[in-house]
Amino acid sequence: MFNIIELENGLEHVQGFFCDAVNTGLRPNKEQGDVAFIRSEVPCDISAVFTSNTFQAAPIKHFQKYPKDFQTDFILINAKNANAMTGDKGIEDIDTIMSTLSQKIEVTNPIMSSTGVIGYRLPIDKITSAFDKFDFTASNSDKAARAIMTTDSFKKELAYKVELEDGTSFNMAAICKGAGMINPAMATMLCFIITDADIPKSDMDDLLLDATEGSFNRISVDGDTSTNDTVMLLSNRKSGQYHKEAFQKVLNKMMFELAMMILRDGEGANKLVAFEVKGAKSIEDAQKASMALSNSLLVKTALFGEDPNWGRIASTIGASGIACDDNTLSIYYDDLLIYSNAFRELDKEREEQAYEIMRQERFTVTCDIGLGSASYTSYGCDLSYEYVKINAEYRT
Amino acid sequence: MFNIIELENGLEHVQGFFCDAVNTGLRPNKEQGDVAFIRSEVPCDISAVFTSNTFQAAPIKHFQKYPKDFQTDFILINAKNANAMTGDKGIEDIDTIMSTLSQKIEVTNPIMSSTGVIGYRLPIDKITSAFDKFDFTASNSDKAARAIMTTDSFKKELAYKVELEDGTSFNMAAICKGAGMINPAMATMLCFIITDADIPKSDMDDLLLDATEGSFNRISVDGDTSTNDTVMLLSNRKSGQYHKEAFQKVLNKMMFELAMMILRDGEGANKLVAFEVKGAKSIEDAQKASMALSNSLLVKTALFGEDPNWGRIASTIGASGIACDDNTLSIYYDDLLIYSNAFRELDKEREEQAYEIMRQERFTVTCDIGLGSASYTSYGCDLSYEYVKINAEYRT
Repeated sequence: MFNIIELENGLEHVQGFFCDAVNTGLRPNKEQGDVAFIRSEVPCDISAVFTSNTFQAAPIKHFQKYPKDFQTDFILINAKNANAMTGDKGIEDIDTIMSTLSQKIEVTNPIMSSTGVIGYRLPIDKITSAFDKFDFTASNSDKAARAIMTTDSFKKELAYKVELEDGTSFNMAAICKGAGMINPAMATMLCFIITDADIPKSDMDDLLLDATEGSFNRISVDGDTSTNDTVMLLSNRKSGQYHKEAFQKVLNKMMFELAMMILRDGEGANKLVAFEVKGAKSIEDAQKASMALSNSLLVKTALFGEDPNWGRIASTIGASGIACDDNTLSIYYDDLLIYSNAFRELDKEREEQAYEIMRQERFTVTCDIGLGSASYTSYGCDLSYEYVKINAEYRT
Repeated sequence: MFNIIELENGLEHVQGFFCDAVNTGLRPNKEQGDVAFIRSEVPCDISAVFTSNTFQAAPIKHFQKYPKDFQTDFILINAKNANAMTGDKGIEDIDTIMSTLSQKIEVTNPIMSSTGVIGYRLPIDKITSAFDKFDFTASNSDKAARAIMTTDSFKKELAYKVELEDGTSFNMAAICKGAGMINPAMATMLCFIITDADIPKSDMDDLLLDATEGSFNRISVDGDTSTNDTVMLLSNRKSGQYHKEAFQKVLNKMMFELAMMILRDGEGANKLVAFEVKGAKSIEDAQKASMALSNSLLVKTALFGEDPNWGRIASTIGASGIACDDNTLSIYYDDLLIYSNAFRELDKEREEQAYEIMRQERFTVTCDIGLGSASYTSYGCDLSYEYVKINAEYRT
């Protein structure tokens, strides 16, 4: 048996890790950092999941130049510039930055992660100016979590202690950024998870993939997929302790909660809606329909308008290309049946009940396809004026 | 040789057809009709293309109950109620309406077409009340074109005369509705094209499919596909004349122009943008990338913000899953190169030029993938606050 204890704040709870952030002028607000680091006293195993976008940003290509199963003790992260679509020069810029870094501090296979606008070379001088300002033995998790934000309206930071039966323990913590452009198949998001658990590398790879599938791959703000999406798990094994079941449970929980934070912080979003599709012929069908719902503009605007217009839900299911039949389909808002073959017209009373459900900050739309037993749930949000405003003005 | 003459207004130019519209109380504004008809003196051949949505609305299912290659002389059209997701009752309601109609006027295989909200039975009494008010020998094309509008801000109506070398001629005309929810693979749109050309039925089928592919299937407002989308072509052969090349040319031109009208009338849209993808490895790749661009929320909001942020264009291409490489990709706004391998950073002067192009009501985004010779162009619009407002408030 084991106990999972949720801790306040973030990365400082994991043994042998340090972090800090400073403002280098990339971000006009000098109160908030724009370049951060996470480092470990000893080299770490690292597992990573990257964007499925063909145009992977330079930091991802730089990462992939290292040999398989390399170890690292340093991650440098910047906001405001994605270093994407910058070609070979973009990768060379990272090498230049890292060679300056290695004159300040001894590092093993340092890696970089960037988020921001696409299509501009990194301002190398600004970024390397951070190396004179960093406290390399600080534990400023709060600063680091804030420095990696772009359109995020709040920082995303979690930490857990796992206590094992014999009194030993290990720790896990994460910082994360992401708010818009979030799509099934990753997001414009960065997530850095660190642990002192003595986890085998093969477990790191497997469990990170699984947890990504159950979390970041199931959320959608606007159906776009970025060039920079990254989830990383680093372990320095400092605690000497490991319990696979406990580790998996905390990793899944932590990544799911971070994903929900991203969704709640969806640009201009006010509601968090689970789209559960069940009774589908295959898992592929269930997934396709669920993601079609969380991506549909008409569903998203109806959510914003708190309009219990189930016709848009039905139309989206029908347009998704899955096996379905309007005689076997049922639709529920939370537990309230709002459509079935026997019940095709919403009466005034039920419409009022549906409206009350839609006014909540969180609710579930369930579509029972009625043709099989496969199910899938994805998570979406409403689309508001604010979303359009934020994205029309992003660069300006 | 032949001459194509564009005529003012609409359906009245085609021999042997009548049309009218009245307000039956479905629409609060009594000045505008909500039930319309198009009829012919003699039974017509009819070709139709319907939505790819699995949940086809009752009028489409009713149409499909007729034997293949049936003839009809009467189309009844209503707005404000889609008669979709209404099951067998929805089809029975159409039979009931048509049996009332046949007590007023002799009809052959009458068909129906509906647009509006999903999930409500048709108000039969209101709709049949139209039969006492219609002038069955009127040519009120303007009224009919206005009656079928939903969120449209202007009527869509075109007519052409084709003059052949020997002095004979035939006529073609159309009315159309559609403004939002427009997607490649059809739209929430209805389009009725009538002609007095003596066109063979097999040409009608082939040319209508071709013209649909080149027009309504290439426009996108929001990526959703409705339950009711319908394009119909009716011919009563009254002119006794036909010229295939001329007919095809006018049909393509007319349907393309109607598609552009729908896009210009995209809910809250201010700009019409052609997304040309060329140099792709395959036509499937070109189509996939072009449609990904016209559907992308981030591209659409950048268009609204007039922000020459080509990074969102590139990111969308990369996320579309096609074969592509950032070293061979080039991006243009009209003729202005804004990205290529040799030219990765937008200088201030060119950014200003790009901004000037984006301020136009119409422009072209060209992405040369640089890997082959296949091309495809689709057409999209920007996403504004107005779109969210219209769709949040649609039913209320």
